[in-house]
Amino acid sequence: MKLIRFGNIDNEKPGIQLENGNRIDVSAFGEDYDENFFKNNGIQRLRDWLKSHKDVCPTLTDDIRLAPPINKPSKIVCVGLNYAKHAAESGMEIPKEPVLFFKAPSAIVGPFDDIIIPKGSTKTDWEVELAVVIGKKASYVDEKDAMDYVAGYVLHNDVSEREFQIERSGQWVKGKSCDTFAPIGPCLVTKEEIKDPNNLNLWLKVNGEMMQNSSTSDFIFNIETVVSYISQFMTLLPGDIISTGTPFGVGLGLNPPTYLKPGDVVELGIEGLGSAKQHVKAYR
Amino acid sequence: MKLIRFGNIDNEKPGIQLENGNRIDVSAFGEDYDENFFKNNGIQRLRDWLKSHKDVCPTLTDDIRLAPPINKPSKIVCVGLNYAKHAAESGMEIPKEPVLFFKAPSAIVGPFDDIIIPKGSTKTDWEVELAVVIGKKASYVDEKDAMDYVAGYVLHNDVSEREFQIERSGQWVKGKSCDTFAPIGPCLVTKEEIKDPNNLNLWLKVNGEMMQNSSTSDFIFNIETVVSYISQFMTLLPGDIISTGTPFGVGLGLNPPTYLKPGDVVELGIEGLGSAKQHVKAYR
Repeated sequence: MKLIRFGNIDNEKPGIQLENGNRIDVSAFGEDYDENFFKNNGIQRLRDWLKSHKDVCPTLTDDIRLAPPINKPSKIVCVGLNYAKHAAESGMEIPKEPVLFFKAPSAIVGPFDDIIIPKGSTKTDWEVELAVVIGKKASYVDEKDAMDYVAGYVLHNDVSEREFQIERSGQWVKGKSCDTFAPIGPCLVTKEEIKDPNNLNLWLKVNGEMMQNSSTSDFIFNIETVVSYISQFMTLLPGDIISTGTPFGVGLGLNPPTYLKPGDVVELGIEGLGSAKQHVKAYR
Repeated sequence: MKLIRFGNIDNEKPGIQLENGNRIDVSAFGEDYDENFFKNNGIQRLRDWLKSHKDVCPTLTDDIRLAPPINKPSKIVCVGLNYAKHAAESGMEIPKEPVLFFKAPSAIVGPFDDIIIPKGSTKTDWEVELAVVIGKKASYVDEKDAMDYVAGYVLHNDVSEREFQIERSGQWVKGKSCDTFAPIGPCLVTKEEIKDPNNLNLWLKVNGEMMQNSSTSDFIFNIETVVSYISQFMTLLPGDIISTGTPFGVGLGLNPPTYLKPGDVVELGIEGLGSAKQHVKAYR
């Protein structure tokens, strides 16, 4: 099942993308895709509800804004340097255990919304990532059970300001949390649709040029490891997002480094999760 | 005005601590102290409502559990190394600009709840801190306007696992986000009650022995600077918590370093914000 949300900011509604590609409004189900939805077995209840209601749900037109497919996750936990070649291009060592950092949930936007370059930024960069959505409360989870806690997957551009992240007195969060720095979507794909999340192609283009093109099979730490590992340090709540790191090919790693500027267009995608496109604009 | 929340976890309700020290149940006001409450001028509306309803609100008994006085903030932003002597005891340089990190909101507990030492922890430490609660959406705020965005203040124990924080592959968040690592309260004191938040005594005792005893007048970066600074990197939402750093006297800085163990009792307080007390227990 592919969960979408749609509509204008502050009036976003839940929907479904059907197998034929049509999108329908499921607001009549009465719940948004938030912590309570996932906690209360919402995916299964929605699936059951659709059996008898799918045909009377309004179909959405193609010009509608797609919103982030999860409403207000309590946290976004990111894994740093989870592909060996990306660690090398960032000038950092391959970590012995997963590097974790947070992104502010206030950075989340829809998959086709603009990326706004923050005031004072000269090093706004791209990062295509596979993000995992948590389906139930996870604390001290074993690797062998980790997939039981996963609701599904979503495409994420972990937009990053490298000066803010690296050159402004310790801790990466400063360069990860600006508004619009977390475009997610187009859809949350529930886990049964993805045969092997540790073997998916993912790519990102800037102005039509392929910059990142890799596979999650190159993960240093796979999804089971990451979910289990994070749950040793904090409790993951239903709807929380784990972003699993980016492969080789970010702007920081180019020679010379190259960053986003107003007018640029970023397109990205992951096998089975669809694609997204963001226009880059200056803050005003 | 002093906002409290009370009752068992999953059934917490809003209340007020009156000037005479009595606590009353204000659930009849119909709103909890969350993002929407602060966003929609809840403090002023509650103040007005109390004029005609205070006398009919039920009084709480002393044995009731005090809950965290803010319900589900979207983020907890912490300032690291914001007192010069604490930076020295941590073996770190005085930062040129504020060091920021996040704590997971899932770490929040009430002011008299237990601190649970996480599995595998040998270095669970204390940090008394003045926390600021944001009253309205703040983005690119000037220092001179920063106080307009503050709703009030609350006492916070920024409990920290030093091995997880410092010795486990980069980024402090791992040692800051365990469950129970953010006892906040007893109350959110609205800003008009605190004449100068940059000049408040704060203290923390372990098993009756004074470990931290300082004043926010020793801040490297004062509250106006911190609120303005953070708002350059992310949007602060109503109800968000900014924890302003801890003074000299944490366990990490002792010779030899000394950490919390099951059975310990931590008491802490800040002038004008009341005091809190947490019993330390092992995870089981």
